[in-house]
Amino acid sequence: MSLPPSSRRAEALVIGRDGEPRAAFRQVPEEVPVSLVYSSVPFAVMMLTPTDLVDFAYGFSLTEGIVADASGIREVEIGEEARGLRLDIRLAPSVLTAHLARRRSISGRTGCGLCGIEEIDQMPQAARPEGPAPAIDPAAIRRALEALEGAQPLNDETRAVHAAALARADGALLAVREDVGRHNALDKLAGAMLRDGARAADGFLIVTSRLSFELVEKAAAIGARTLVAISAPTALALERARALDMNLVAVARRDTIAVFHGMERLRATAPG
Amino acid sequence: MSLPPSSRRAEALVIGRDGEPRAAFRQVPEEVPVSLVYSSVPFAVMMLTPTDLVDFAYGFSLTEGIVADASGIREVEIGEEARGLRLDIRLAPSVLTAHLARRRSISGRTGCGLCGIEEIDQMPQAARPEGPAPAIDPAAIRRALEALEGAQPLNDETRAVHAAALARADGALLAVREDVGRHNALDKLAGAMLRDGARAADGFLIVTSRLSFELVEKAAAIGARTLVAISAPTALALERARALDMNLVAVARRDTIAVFHGMERLRATAPG
Repeated sequence: MSLPPSSRRAEALVIGRDGEPRAAFRQVPEEVPVSLVYSSVPFAVMMLTPTDLVDFAYGFSLTEGIVADASGIREVEIGEEARGLRLDIRLAPSVLTAHLARRRSISGRTGCGLCGIEEIDQMPQAARPEGPAPAIDPAAIRRALEALEGAQPLNDETRAVHAAALARADGALLAVREDVGRHNALDKLAGAMLRDGARAADGFLIVTSRLSFELVEKAAAIGARTLVAISAPTALALERARALDMNLVAVARRDTIAVFHGMERLRATAPG
Repeated sequence: MSLPPSSRRAEALVIGRDGEPRAAFRQVPEEVPVSLVYSSVPFAVMMLTPTDLVDFAYGFSLTEGIVADASGIREVEIGEEARGLRLDIRLAPSVLTAHLARRRSISGRTGCGLCGIEEIDQMPQAARPEGPAPAIDPAAIRRALEALEGAQPLNDETRAVHAAALARADGALLAVREDVGRHNALDKLAGAMLRDGARAADGFLIVTSRLSFELVEKAAAIGARTLVAISAPTALALERARALDMNLVAVARRDTIAVFHGMERLRATAPG
């Protein structure tokens, strides 16, 4: 089937300080309910921008803990529903058995990280990875941020979507994914990495969004040791990054970064 | 019990273009798992900034469709859990009966709007209100936006939280609530309005966040006929606003607004 477009032209009336209304057109991003169905059993409905849906299926399955690697998924099919889209994800038999068993005990766990759970004890908790996190190189982060500005086609059109990106240690961008939802952008990136066999541990992840607890959990599930965001972290996000020993960097404004965890791993930089 | 603070001081290392790291302190917003328990039955866990929790209990209950008005809630108690907080919400008997019956058929429906549901047919759908929406007054919107800039104390401290506000038709701010989550800020505002008997229909709501489908649904559940956001809407948000005949206004940049729905109700403005 052909996917719906990622944005749509909408008419608007634009009014500046002179009070004079002018007719204009704006591209607005699409947002579509996508039903995730594992081996015929519905699991959750997420609101997505309909791009990179197979990546999303893989990434969501990884960060939700349904699969541990790409071999857990046999096939992903994109279909239509009356009011949205449908991702039919066929799991490997042993993975499906484990998924259905867990599903019985945790009803409604969903992709926002926490909001589908019913009790705090069900909160996800990634394990602290072994070995030290890599050095933080401000020059590499700056290079990646500059490259990212030119690598968000849907945001260029709409100014209303988030991006998640994987960068190499030297700052070269390896992959970028966009979505109206910040969790979804990171899940799409996670899926693209899983399908390509890309490793997050040596480079770093960037998210163009606020830095809440769940994004740190998702980044840990992807194997990232460094997470860069366009906002300060929440206190809980910082606490989790410390517990996971994940380098946590916020972009304060253009050309300025703030390191919230991993300060002792800062690489000295020549003045830019 | 005493609530945790709304923000915390965190050490950071700030690096500008000169590459010289400087130690600094930043206030980061708190984010706490809050378990919502209705008459002893756990319903959902939400990540919240721990302010205005009773407002949140009322607003969440309203926008989730659990109560229709303030009389549906008998009492809200704030308690502590090992890893977070707990809102014990005692429902009126008839409301509790209806809630438990619905709960059996829709397991896991949660506060992100959609992400807890398992099938697209479970998507919420507010009814279109009767009568015409009020006029859109760009000067009043501008006044409210200017006032809002000085009415976000937690964001002044942290630069990392969202706000939702209710304004009178003339632009005077009536209530503002803040949270790390944009849905939560709107739910807190909804609860404050429900408890005060404030009506949204005559004035307008402002959210300092992106404008997705669920925010339009929530605004409709609150009874708003005009929603102003600091971002363009998604295509689905716009579609829903049209179906609900809700005025939809995006702040394009300071002093400029874009009306996406309700253009024919624009009130002429004297040059500012």
